Amino acid sequence: MWIQRDIPLGTRARGFHLVTREVLSALPELGQISVGLLHLLIGHTSASLALNENASADVRHDFESWFDEAVPERASYWTHTLEGPDDMPAHVKAALLGSSLSLPVRDGALALGTWQGIYLGEHRDRASARTLTATLWGE
Amino acid sequence: MWIQRDIPLGTRARGFHLVTREVLSALPELGQISVGLLHLLIGHTSASLALNENASADVRHDFESWFDEAVPERASYWTHTLEGPDDMPAHVKAALLGSSLSLPVRDGALALGTWQGIYLGEHRDRASARTLTATLWGE
Amino acid sequence: MWIQRDIPLGTRARGFHLVTREVLSALPELGQISVGLLHLLIGHTSASLALNENASADVRHDFESWFDEAVPERASYWTHTLEGPDDMPAHVKAALLGSSLSLPVRDGALALGTWQGIYLGEHRDRASARTLTATLWGE
Repeated sequence: MWIQRDIPLGTRARGFHLVTREVLSALPELGQISVGLLHLLIGHTSASLALNENASADVRHDFESWFDEAVPERASYWTHTLEGPDDMPAHVKAALLGSSLSLPVRDGALALGTWQGIYLGEHRDRASARTLTATLWGE
Repeated sequence: MWIQRDIPLGTRARGFHLVTREVLSALPELGQISVGLLHLLIGHTSASLALNENASADVRHDFESWFDEAVPERASYWTHTLEGPDDMPAHVKAALLGSSLSLPVRDGALALGTWQGIYLGEHRDRASARTLTATLWGE
Repeated sequence: MWIQRDIPLGTRARGFHLVTREVLSALPELGQISVGLLHLLIGHTSASLALNENASADVRHDFESWFDEAVPERASYWTHTLEGPDDMPAHVKAALLGSSLSLPVRDGALALGTWQGIYLGEHRDRASARTLTATLWGE
């Protein structure tokens, strides 16, 4: 059984956002899979997907602080500055966090840890809408 | 052919640990798969999985040094400090390294490079036991 | 349908390189898959795979600058220095970026975003040839 579908995500502010519920509601067939995998790709180079703490909003806030400190805008070594000071840092942040997730499915649900949720990292100041490509397979 | 199983890992000290042997010994069915994949998820938000050098213990030691330098405790930008100074850095380290691995299976064995082993990154000072969810499929 | 194949990549200079075309030309069967996944593993611990901007060479140049700044050679905390000052930084860069990619296949082609290409990160000064293990499955 294979399901593949694009999932449009609304435009979001720069920062980290929990999107687990939004992803699952676009994939009702997941409930029929007893064992399988869900693969998600974000088809953009300045946004990212990660798995992390799903409870405290301040964890997501601190993610943004650390990444802004570690990948600074206006550093002297940037040469690709044509698209704004946030562009090149956005590319690096996206590569550090990654563009895709593979998640196990068990008994019709994602088999994540209790505290794990899906993060969308929006790394541009003025993002456009983002789209995920979801691929679900199993039996 | 699908196999899915939780693999309990013992509690480990903060740092990086090779767990390849432990993972493989929990998956005897891998020996019957001629081509496939093994997916591993660590169901926690302050520990990570990575693939790196399987020979020198000092490589794993230096991983810990670099990550402690790059994601410092007690930095002024942390706001999520309720669970201790090592908590928020642990979340960031886990996201940088990642929570899952997908590994090719060939002729009944993992098709890794000669020097590649599976690292468990334990990023808390006082961790509890960690569990992997392994999903194996192929033919 | 399962295809698994090693793809030898030529030796490349230290830095980030686009290898999308090279990978695809080694996998003609991908054109026959209507829905599936392609998994790529780089079987080395000092080189990496990532997905990022496929147009501007200066983006790849700036990736190299950021990683060299963030993971410095000759830092006082390195103990694994026997294989040269670029060795331990190469291991850390490889772990930050990752050793594998999972990419969706749709209608006989990779379902990537318009601007996404496959990056090979070569993190050693004097690399040897690198090999990918490609695993392709779907229907």
